[in-house]
Amino acid sequence: MTGIDDLPIRDELRGKSPYGAPQLDVAVRLNTNENPYPLPEALVERIAERVREAARDLNRYPDRDAVELRTELARYLTRTAGHPVTVANIWAANGSNEVLQQLLQTFGGPGRTALGFEPSYSMHALIARGTGTGWLSGPRNDDFTIDVERARRTIAEHRPDVVFITSPNNPTGTAVEADTVLALYEAAQAAKPSLVVVDEAYGEFSHRASLLPLIAGRPNLVLSRTMSKAFGAAGLRLGYLAADPAVVDAVQLVRLPYHLSSVTQATALAALEHTDTLLGYVEQLKAERDRLVAELRALGYEVTDSDANFVQFGRFEDSHAVWQQILDRGVLVRDNGVPGWLRVTAGTPDENDAFLEAVRALKKEQST
Amino acid sequence: MTGIDDLPIRDELRGKSPYGAPQLDVAVRLNTNENPYPLPEALVERIAERVREAARDLNRYPDRDAVELRTELARYLTRTAGHPVTVANIWAANGSNEVLQQLLQTFGGPGRTALGFEPSYSMHALIARGTGTGWLSGPRNDDFTIDVERARRTIAEHRPDVVFITSPNNPTGTAVEADTVLALYEAAQAAKPSLVVVDEAYGEFSHRASLLPLIAGRPNLVLSRTMSKAFGAAGLRLGYLAADPAVVDAVQLVRLPYHLSSVTQATALAALEHTDTLLGYVEQLKAERDRLVAELRALGYEVTDSDANFVQFGRFEDSHAVWQQILDRGVLVRDNGVPGWLRVTAGTPDENDAFLEAVRALKKEQST
Repeated sequence: MTGIDDLPIRDELRGKSPYGAPQLDVAVRLNTNENPYPLPEALVERIAERVREAARDLNRYPDRDAVELRTELARYLTRTAGHPVTVANIWAANGSNEVLQQLLQTFGGPGRTALGFEPSYSMHALIARGTGTGWLSGPRNDDFTIDVERARRTIAEHRPDVVFITSPNNPTGTAVEADTVLALYEAAQAAKPSLVVVDEAYGEFSHRASLLPLIAGRPNLVLSRTMSKAFGAAGLRLGYLAADPAVVDAVQLVRLPYHLSSVTQATALAALEHTDTLLGYVEQLKAERDRLVAELRALGYEVTDSDANFVQFGRFEDSHAVWQQILDRGVLVRDNGVPGWLRVTAGTPDENDAFLEAVRALKKEQST
Repeated sequence: MTGIDDLPIRDELRGKSPYGAPQLDVAVRLNTNENPYPLPEALVERIAERVREAARDLNRYPDRDAVELRTELARYLTRTAGHPVTVANIWAANGSNEVLQQLLQTFGGPGRTALGFEPSYSMHALIARGTGTGWLSGPRNDDFTIDVERARRTIAEHRPDVVFITSPNNPTGTAVEADTVLALYEAAQAAKPSLVVVDEAYGEFSHRASLLPLIAGRPNLVLSRTMSKAFGAAGLRLGYLAADPAVVDAVQLVRLPYHLSSVTQATALAALEHTDTLLGYVEQLKAERDRLVAELRALGYEVTDSDANFVQFGRFEDSHAVWQQILDRGVLVRDNGVPGWLRVTAGTPDENDAFLEAVRALKKEQST
């Protein structure tokens, strides 16, 4: 039988494994930062309606530029993120992963490098590898914040072509202050100039305002967003960016033509019609997230401040063993490789109770 | 105002334009090889039904491996393409463009090269550029067939990592014989070994059998397909490949996780339920294609033999001027840069009549 390594694949892919959380059949799944609330039935019907309409024209290519969808996304950001943007500022793709891939194809790629402050969203490094972009791992403080001075030195020394700043950060939940972003942007411009990508996939869950206003007057600053989390639409795969119109023009040079299907555009447009309802769920999840932080701390766990829909907690000598012990109690959390820590997604109140029950039981066992 | 060239984009993208046919508002659009038949209403309803079901779970990530969809695609190929395949042989993505991009990320990329026999589907070269893969343009005969001996010499000389063989070829309509594919495969293995990609986007419209059976025992041979044309679903963006299971495993290393949305999977599955109806439209289009070839020849045009849902006709001293003259008569065809030739998609009988009327009028003007 032929194996991967018998094929003429690229050398740097040899021996590698694909990205992905284990998909286990567990009652309470709090491992992939999904929104636990199914879409309201009225929205489900509206999706069926809009997709039916789109299906009548399915023999035709989709709107290559997704103008209606980008217009509605601009309207959404203008209303909720504290800065007016238009269709010309917005680009959309199949998940923010594809947005980031297009950015790295345009601004990174062979002979160029991208820098992230780790631990962070591990797809940044993987998409860099997939696009032939060199990867630089920048430092964080012990509390997972970014030390501005060290970060500036790293940028000055390595002169990366692309800098990722994830806020709120995944998997730690840590928000990045606007002042920090500005300082790193200045450093990145002085060093190269380079593109700075603020990944705000969890932006709607933050205690702080969006970093969107920072794009004004900064053509090399890009904000990346997704409908997966706040819109409860991980299955939809709709990511987008907001930036200077020149950035939107630039990614056209590498985007696959007609990359965004008619059914994806129709479904996303339906979801945007129900923004207020969905943002109501976000408020519930923020309250649950805060409850998780408080209760975990009350149990004696160390908990990283969280601005996202998940919580990082620890510390454990053997975090994988604890992951397994929690799984044995019917709750799947994420062991995503930050030594000593685990990550739990904020679920429904019942799911969070089940999780808290599981970790409470663990604490009891340890103390007996 | 900031322009693209003020941004720190890659040097090879400077001054380039994005790919894409002009989207003009014309009564008869025969320029992008779309299937002119809208989906039957029963299928439209079935899509709405399956998407409604998928939308109820939209807060969850889609099936990352699209197992049900790949199983049904395997069943379809097994039934129609003369060779049994299973889910393990099939991979699917957002359009065959994304399939090809994943293949080039895995088997091409920086420091590697891909070869195509041009004129051919221009996205092959563009996706190569987008993935940092060097591009080699191989020769065709004057009748747009591939000269096996010249092609072998080209492969032996340049030792490409990936070889594209498009059959039926776009934009010429030319089919490639199985013997030719085998000869080029052997040459490519002897030279490197390299991956050979048979792009069969228009396979269902061919007079000849699919080249699928050739994958047996040839782990470096990949067949690429799409639902855009034969399934009348250009708006769906569903491409797929059939190959040795090791190739399917290999592209997992670069595919973006959860790249294929739940709504795309649901819509494609609905369309596959209606395969027989849709293949009935394919038969009508093949008959119309043959009619276009015959009538254009009767009018004195030179016409390339076509196995696709489009026809290349000429020759013109100034093909762009003729394109404009046809457009002035309300019919949009494609001027895709093959000097002296234009390409017309087989539309409905009425659309084809309108096109034939337009070119007949042109001939009359020329003879007076």
